[in-house]
Amino acid sequence: MITGGLGLIGSALARRLADFGADVDVLLVDSLNENFGGNLFNIENIRDRVRINISDIRDTHGLRYLLRDCDFIFNLAGQTSHMDSMSAPFEDLQINCLAQLSLLEACREINPSVRIVYASTRQVYGRPQYLPVDEKHPIHPVDVNGINKVSGESYHLLYHQAHGIRSTVLRLTNTYGPHMRIRDARQIFLGIWIKNVILGQPFEVWGGEQVRDFLYVEDAADAFIATALSDSTIGKVINVGGSEAVSLAELAGLLVDGTQTAGFRVCEFPADRKRIDIGNYFTDDSLFRRLTEWRPQTPLRVGLERTVDFYRANSRHYL
Amino acid sequence: MITGGLGLIGSALARRLADFGADVDVLLVDSLNENFGGNLFNIENIRDRVRINISDIRDTHGLRYLLRDCDFIFNLAGQTSHMDSMSAPFEDLQINCLAQLSLLEACREINPSVRIVYASTRQVYGRPQYLPVDEKHPIHPVDVNGINKVSGESYHLLYHQAHGIRSTVLRLTNTYGPHMRIRDARQIFLGIWIKNVILGQPFEVWGGEQVRDFLYVEDAADAFIATALSDSTIGKVINVGGSEAVSLAELAGLLVDGTQTAGFRVCEFPADRKRIDIGNYFTDDSLFRRLTEWRPQTPLRVGLERTVDFYRANSRHYL
Repeated sequence: MITGGLGLIGSALARRLADFGADVDVLLVDSLNENFGGNLFNIENIRDRVRINISDIRDTHGLRYLLRDCDFIFNLAGQTSHMDSMSAPFEDLQINCLAQLSLLEACREINPSVRIVYASTRQVYGRPQYLPVDEKHPIHPVDVNGINKVSGESYHLLYHQAHGIRSTVLRLTNTYGPHMRIRDARQIFLGIWIKNVILGQPFEVWGGEQVRDFLYVEDAADAFIATALSDSTIGKVINVGGSEAVSLAELAGLLVDGTQTAGFRVCEFPADRKRIDIGNYFTDDSLFRRLTEWRPQTPLRVGLERTVDFYRANSRHYL
Repeated sequence: MITGGLGLIGSALARRLADFGADVDVLLVDSLNENFGGNLFNIENIRDRVRINISDIRDTHGLRYLLRDCDFIFNLAGQTSHMDSMSAPFEDLQINCLAQLSLLEACREINPSVRIVYASTRQVYGRPQYLPVDEKHPIHPVDVNGINKVSGESYHLLYHQAHGIRSTVLRLTNTYGPHMRIRDARQIFLGIWIKNVILGQPFEVWGGEQVRDFLYVEDAADAFIATALSDSTIGKVINVGGSEAVSLAELAGLLVDGTQTAGFRVCEFPADRKRIDIGNYFTDDSLFRRLTEWRPQTPLRVGLERTVDFYRANSRHYL
């Protein structure tokens, strides 16, 4: 089962799992909440090889039924918009905190031998105190979303420690690629950039000097599979970083280089974003590299080209 | 307003505030949930000098009305039992996580200039990595209660940082004294000890070697007032420790010395408690001592004597 299975990473993971063949029964659970990343077009080319159940992870009764026979739960469903978490904090709490506890309680009761991999985010670290950021870095969430993701993580670890549920928490850095939401910046700011590139319009880079690392979506999907197949990751919190770290201005340059667009302009951070921005961030994921064979395979330039090519061909499904 | 105003610390704080005289209007909000620490007898001697409103902090509409004219909120209401948080995790989440966000959202909307002091717990640190434990110690909650208290803290800090609400988080060590719950161990294990002392029965000390510091309830109440009156504490997380640190066996000895009881016996930790016990703990509260004039005034021996005397006279209200 993949919660959030119609989203950016969930759908990439579904494709990987579908490629394992008929022995693997893949169930995708997704609310298709119009503000989130789910999109049926994301799994169009594997639609006959997966099962789809449209439901919200807040639907506790439905979830209890769906998870009873699962061997693996890739738990990716979540509200991801930092701005929305500040303007609608209770919805973020219900999805990222309460529903996570519900899922784990259901596993404890009716499927305690399930293996869970939970998708968390580098946002829980807040403003980095040192770089690169490893798993020992203090937790300091800077928005409601970060606070609730910390709770979601903690529940997964506690249910391992206290109840023996075999769970792992992955803290992913910024993930991008084909099938991401580009209608707005709710999933990742890069969505808006790509949208403008596709429409032939200039896009805005806020600040521009902040450094980030970027994880291509297929590398992210591979990280979930490598985790699920490695018992040494059980009960742990593990960072998953990108292939390389660049400034946002460099990222914009890479994006424009590979396309023929009107370019971009660097401008001031809006005040309401500035307040919750976290400065430079990039990941130390040496723990994950020690525990598994996983390595990011896709250079940023290649990933960006594939992404733009995908949206040039399929933008009508995403705009 | 004091949420949890009929509980151990809330009622001591109410007495202190009532003593300020007619200029201070004290509103006590308490659910009198039979599993928690609230008890009307706790405020019997100040009943004509305070207002009492029996309601649950999950009652969002009621709370919005009650807090609209408050200058100070001493936010002490909470589910405190670690075992109950494991067996009834959703109730713990509603009270210690969701209701805290509701209270802060209400303040942001209708009383943004209020001053809030939030009662958290040393439990958020989990098993200490070093001693004494200061505020920089990593957060590692070991039960559902700890996870939700971390969320409660984080919301208070975020609403300061993002919305300017003047809040402070106090992490209290084990607090004891007259007016605590002694019917069972839901508030503090010492409750059960006192109950047995009063009944002339031997009590059990689990383990016995673990070191803890203990904060007398009137010193805890003074800590809340010192915080509310010090602007330098706004936006901070601050430890509040006890007068001295002793092993549980020493604590039991002190308790028995001052009374004529059948004594105690040291025995093995029950398995379900062992799993979530955190070993030795005592507090570094030098930050609080730098920011305020507060010092604990009550030696442990004196506090224990006062506590036993109180329950000898009033046990029928607590058993």
